Amino acid sequence: MIKVAVLGYGTVGSGVVEVIETNREFIERRTPEGIGVKYILDLRDFPGDPFESKVVHDFNVILNDDEVAVVCETMGGVGPAYQFTKQALERGKSVCTSNKELVAKHGPELLEIARSHRCNYLFEASVGGGIPIIRPLNSSLTAERVEEITGILNGTTNYILTKMAAEGADFGEVLKEAQEKGYAERNPEADVEGHDACRKIAILASLMTGKYVDSEKVFTEGITKITSADFAYAEAAGYSVKLLGRAKVLGDETLAMVAPFLIPGEHPLATVRDVFNAVYVTGNMLGDSMYYGRGAGKLPTASAVVSDVVDCARHQGKVITCLWDKEEARLADVDESSRAFFVRAKVCARERVAAAFPGGRMFEAPGREEDFGYFTAEMKEREFREKYEALGGDVLGRIRLV
Amino acid sequence: MIKVAVLGYGTVGSGVVEVIETNREFIERRTPEGIGVKYILDLRDFPGDPFESKVVHDFNVILNDDEVAVVCETMGGVGPAYQFTKQALERGKSVCTSNKELVAKHGPELLEIARSHRCNYLFEASVGGGIPIIRPLNSSLTAERVEEITGILNGTTNYILTKMAAEGADFGEVLKEAQEKGYAERNPEADVEGHDACRKIAILASLMTGKYVDSEKVFTEGITKITSADFAYAEAAGYSVKLLGRAKVLGDETLAMVAPFLIPGEHPLATVRDVFNAVYVTGNMLGDSMYYGRGAGKLPTASAVVSDVVDCARHQGKVITCLWDKEEARLADVDESSRAFFVRAKVCARERVAAAFPGGRMFEAPGREEDFGYFTAEMKEREFREKYEALGGDVLGRIRLV
Repeated sequence: MIKVAVLGYGTVGSGVVEVIETNREFIERRTPEGIGVKYILDLRDFPGDPFESKVVHDFNVILNDDEVAVVCETMGGVGPAYQFTKQALERGKSVCTSNKELVAKHGPELLEIARSHRCNYLFEASVGGGIPIIRPLNSSLTAERVEEITGILNGTTNYILTKMAAEGADFGEVLKEAQEKGYAERNPEADVEGHDACRKIAILASLMTGKYVDSEKVFTEGITKITSADFAYAEAAGYSVKLLGRAKVLGDETLAMVAPFLIPGEHPLATVRDVFNAVYVTGNMLGDSMYYGRGAGKLPTASAVVSDVVDCARHQGKVITCLWDKEEARLADVDESSRAFFVRAKVCARERVAAAFPGGRMFEAPGREEDFGYFTAEMKEREFREKYEALGGDVLGRIRLV
Repeated sequence: MIKVAVLGYGTVGSGVVEVIETNREFIERRTPEGIGVKYILDLRDFPGDPFESKVVHDFNVILNDDEVAVVCETMGGVGPAYQFTKQALERGKSVCTSNKELVAKHGPELLEIARSHRCNYLFEASVGGGIPIIRPLNSSLTAERVEEITGILNGTTNYILTKMAAEGADFGEVLKEAQEKGYAERNPEADVEGHDACRKIAILASLMTGKYVDSEKVFTEGITKITSADFAYAEAAGYSVKLLGRAKVLGDETLAMVAPFLIPGEHPLATVRDVFNAVYVTGNMLGDSMYYGRGAGKLPTASAVVSDVVDCARHQGKVITCLWDKEEARLADVDESSRAFFVRAKVCARERVAAAFPGGRMFEAPGREEDFGYFTAEMKEREFREKYEALGGDVLGRIRLV
């Protein structure tokens, strides 16, 4: 039996234990030697919990037990998780993680340590929760030159944007409701400012390029400035507003960014609602493909972690290919990238907006009398920003077009 | 270098050669020893073709060449493809195929031969063309009890249904147009009668259960009876009409069927348009996930075949887990399965329809004066059919609801 230690008995960690127990029969079909939890590391005790006896407080118990072949790191954060992961890999114990922050920051280093100790560092659960996306990129699209990845990578913001679209409500109201329902954290910054999506697109961009895309260098804009007025225009024009993480190969450079975008209603990403996530991948042979599912949640995320454990069990002593070097990818300057923009402005600024962005088109939305919408022609970010800022207080908002 | 032989230099076979050549650099990142085409088996010669010199007419040349490690079977059909596959596997040569007919018919037998000769029989391209779905089922959803699979598995029929929905045209007209454009075969029966989708859902149902689901025993109904009138009601009620392959675990039995269904407009499958395919998978931990992309076409399908070659290269001398036994799965009787139905009938039959299907609801569509729509309550297939047939010539059509 493959003996597993789970680090952190929180939401995902307890989910990992639950998945291993509940689906024992199905997992054993695929891993005949079976998978069993030997330790659960947590600072707390869990009196009365059925796995109480497996709880330990000292990581060294796990580290020094040669029976433990796989460690599931479901602690989150960079501090001790980083140290524990490193130490486990150095002892030849594979590590399966849901910790996108750690993967985004130290992925290539930890992969290298794993390789040199003939074990694996797997992170299917770090992007898209339960959606299989890391393994398809590494093991299925192997005959492809992947050219572009666009994802709805954060469930909280997608829930908020879906609600805003359905109810015509403003960001603040919907955020409050989402917090009450537990769909948004009390401190929602990591979600609504796009930092969570940014880490995930940095991981996907890294796998696309095989190099290191530093999430801290990825242009990131959140959804806090999107208003119900923007949705009125989006709906009238047949668009959805989505927070997208985007990565695109541009010659030797990689364009990576997170921002709200308008996408046409018939695009498969437009119909991804509520807390669901989806990753849209374009390859040079396959064309477009999409991977859709629950981007978060205890059991979906835990299922992905356990699928990594199964992979470790199948590849004992063997390194599973993951092309991700320490060398930094050259990021394209977002300012130099081109696209069309949606602008919302006061009626009094009609002529000035049209003059600033020649070749665009005006757009009306029913019931909107004090402002108007305008779609610019395709233009560089920098040029757009300069002209937009020069319009001063008469412009009320802008959203990029996919 | 991994030496490959391609059987059949038609659409997919020539695509395989093209993918290997075009993406050489990317494939070599994942398979450092490289992949190269050594032989192309075809009855024809290809004078002037850049690969002319690799063309052979005798399969034994390939079989007896110990350098050939992987055979790509892109011939289609069951006859020689079956013999060639068997012989190759018996010599320890892995076989990667796009041949859904052969996989559906002889999959478990060929997998067993591969296992006993420590090579692999891989068939990612047999379902969903370029969409990674076989490998995700076998390698990603390994911690799941997969409970249900629903797929839009045939591009031709989805193209026809999409056109019918968009243009209000009838089946015959759209089929003719599709044939002219090359989206439908001159003999369209395998597509429009659902046989192609049936083979694919039989493969997916087999992987879901680990047993053999015989495609010839799967209830199959095509799209030839769907009319523009049905679409008028579907649209008014907010539904899409899709030809679905469905497989569902029902206790010890498996329900498998292919038929046109009405699905709610907000369901992710409803927005899969034109020649695109998608497979919707429900697991007991992950919940719903979906895999979307091009279900056919030269390069997408070839890309999937080559991804299998890469997998073979990575697993030389090792058997990749694929749970699919020869034992037949117990199929549930479709007649005993329950669902709601949409009925279209002549206005004169309003009262008789309502009396035959109590608890349902009438539905009007704009511009339809001679007929009406009716949604029944959930009921067994058998009961529905008996009542529907008893209504005689006054009922004009019926479609199942998802």
